[in-house]
Amino acid sequence: MPYYIGDVIRDENKLVARTPERFRDSGIEVLIRTPVERIDMKESAVQLAGGSTIDYDILAIGTGTIPILPGIPGQDLEGVFTLKRLNDAIRIKSYIDMKPVRSAAIIGAGFISMEMCENLRLRGIETTIINMGNLPVTRWDPIFSKRAQEELDRNGVITLTGTKTESITRGNDGRLHLATTAGELAVDLLIIAIGVRPDARLAAEAGIPLGKTGAIQVDFSQKTPLENIYAVGDCCEVFNRVSMRWVHIPLGDIANKQGRVAGRNIGGAPILFPGIVAAQSFRLFDLEMAATGIDEREANQAGFHPVSTIVWGNAIAGAMPGNSPVGIKLIADRSTGKLLGAQAIGEAGAVSRVNTLSCALWAGLGLEEVAYLDLAYAPPFSPSWDPIHLAAQDLLKKL
Amino acid sequence: MPYYIGDVIRDENKLVARTPERFRDSGIEVLIRTPVERIDMKESAVQLAGGSTIDYDILAIGTGTIPILPGIPGQDLEGVFTLKRLNDAIRIKSYIDMKPVRSAAIIGAGFISMEMCENLRLRGIETTIINMGNLPVTRWDPIFSKRAQEELDRNGVITLTGTKTESITRGNDGRLHLATTAGELAVDLLIIAIGVRPDARLAAEAGIPLGKTGAIQVDFSQKTPLENIYAVGDCCEVFNRVSMRWVHIPLGDIANKQGRVAGRNIGGAPILFPGIVAAQSFRLFDLEMAATGIDEREANQAGFHPVSTIVWGNAIAGAMPGNSPVGIKLIADRSTGKLLGAQAIGEAGAVSRVNTLSCALWAGLGLEEVAYLDLAYAPPFSPSWDPIHLAAQDLLKKL
Repeated sequence: MPYYIGDVIRDENKLVARTPERFRDSGIEVLIRTPVERIDMKESAVQLAGGSTIDYDILAIGTGTIPILPGIPGQDLEGVFTLKRLNDAIRIKSYIDMKPVRSAAIIGAGFISMEMCENLRLRGIETTIINMGNLPVTRWDPIFSKRAQEELDRNGVITLTGTKTESITRGNDGRLHLATTAGELAVDLLIIAIGVRPDARLAAEAGIPLGKTGAIQVDFSQKTPLENIYAVGDCCEVFNRVSMRWVHIPLGDIANKQGRVAGRNIGGAPILFPGIVAAQSFRLFDLEMAATGIDEREANQAGFHPVSTIVWGNAIAGAMPGNSPVGIKLIADRSTGKLLGAQAIGEAGAVSRVNTLSCALWAGLGLEEVAYLDLAYAPPFSPSWDPIHLAAQDLLKKL
Repeated sequence: MPYYIGDVIRDENKLVARTPERFRDSGIEVLIRTPVERIDMKESAVQLAGGSTIDYDILAIGTGTIPILPGIPGQDLEGVFTLKRLNDAIRIKSYIDMKPVRSAAIIGAGFISMEMCENLRLRGIETTIINMGNLPVTRWDPIFSKRAQEELDRNGVITLTGTKTESITRGNDGRLHLATTAGELAVDLLIIAIGVRPDARLAAEAGIPLGKTGAIQVDFSQKTPLENIYAVGDCCEVFNRVSMRWVHIPLGDIANKQGRVAGRNIGGAPILFPGIVAAQSFRLFDLEMAATGIDEREANQAGFHPVSTIVWGNAIAGAMPGNSPVGIKLIADRSTGKLLGAQAIGEAGAVSRVNTLSCALWAGLGLEEVAYLDLAYAPPFSPSWDPIHLAAQDLLKKL
């Protein structure tokens, strides 16, 4: 009998083990709230927390990631959260609903931080981002990150830059007191969002090889180097079609695809996972931010000779009402003209353009082709020369 | 000295020969309101309407299209318009501004008809579409065309289907009286939008070869079979990368690209025009409609073995506010799994998906790859399995 050892899923306000119900008539037994202690490869069994074991013919590991903690005093206090699972979001929401939360701080300025501060502000909570660096979302070019910072400022988010949090204590006022290099800050809620690392502990202890990234090593079938053990999702590596390297990019859509690929291979309808181009997006208040492929740093690491440009164009035809500027950054290889990466920002039309460019990266197109791509032009949707074309033509001049 | 023999451009309410001014300091002489009577290839000269001639070393032809007229009595009456040039739009607008235009009819139900009726309705004009067929915009699958018809109905556009217009007369009431197979109709304004054909008259008379489509034959450099004569835009053919055939698809963005390619080749910075995938879109009130590639009929004509599916998905993550359904049709070759075409419809997210799929067609991707394309997923912009993925996976089952 196949087993699924899963998470509790909470539905609205009461805890519901929804997953078991979904599988009730499927012949799959679902164990929830059941930590696995150890994978015993000799016996082909997993050892559960209570001491009992389950034998397996084929094992699939989907242990996800662990939020990185700063390792400072007070990081485990009540009111201090990380955000990884659905349950984390539910816990944060419950805390806000039950306590008087008037102010919050977020340590970190990546895209999880950005998404959280939008939602905190929507609830009217005074929100401070504590950023060790100078700009948020450093995957993007500093010019675009600055625009993100302006969007934070415009929406009343307070940002402390170049600031490190050194300790958290509970004050006599019941609030969390953060000692930072920029002084003390008292808040009702703290979210730590400084990144995640693959949770490959069970796999590593069992001797399943990890990649250089620390995530579980898999092949294009999602199989680990061990014949009957698969891994999927945020705990394992994925092949980047642009850098041609195995990387660790924990994103939900990639995990979904890997799960499907592993399932088909285990179930006997083989399929290969063709890899990713690292497409990503998030919304920050009225701003779309999207990126795909690799940036100059990664391109250099992969042996390319990157050259890039940033071009600002119209999201839709200039004469149409509702037009807004969209910024496109393209990165290409100087010696071959091959497209290596793209970033976009704007109130509209940024994500859709990065999707088109993700397909161009997927197919390995060169700038000459991107500059003349046939897109579905109509004035309400784009200028006749799309910003994609303008950016590619501009970058061609720099090759 | 290079010559440009162009059109008058009217700016707002007064006629301004804007084009000549733009070229004032460029060394290019611009002749406007200057019809060309004949191309004299022996003398390498063009003969102008007044009788004078201009010699050329290299000639570029961009004569565009001619609107097709039904050939019925009264089609030349005042108040009867076609819409091809900017000036046509200005003339229609002026007519509406000056006359009392309370009702209008459009003969034809293609995308120009759709775009016009939206604008007429926005001015509060009662609008009737006279359609010889049963559904509008037949490039799209009947299921999507029906949705377009519903959008017309919902916005108070009257449609006569299976209806032919037989004559137009000026009534004693000063209105245009249309005799149709569905009875008489009196309107203040009539737009004929039943298609265009390439205006290759000058070229044909000069002996420049036309393709099977009736448009001027060109190569990937936009050169006609004659060494020093180029053609660009709606008057010439273009290579369809999907059907691998030379076709006539008069669209503004294609014309723009061809002009640039010809200019570079004439100017000595050679470049090839890589062709098109026939991406197209328009907005109909609150609806986006987009299509790319070829449909079943064209696929059969090109020797493919088409198979297709229509899938409805969420434009953005189902749980997000503002979600709306988007329909995606994919057409693929049964024997190879190669993507051949795509159509999309929805209040949002249809055009952007067709752009991504246009890039997939451009690159010649197969359904297996489309089903796992890495797109920039985030809940405000798409579900984690995009409708593109769902459609490709569904169609894979039919191969």
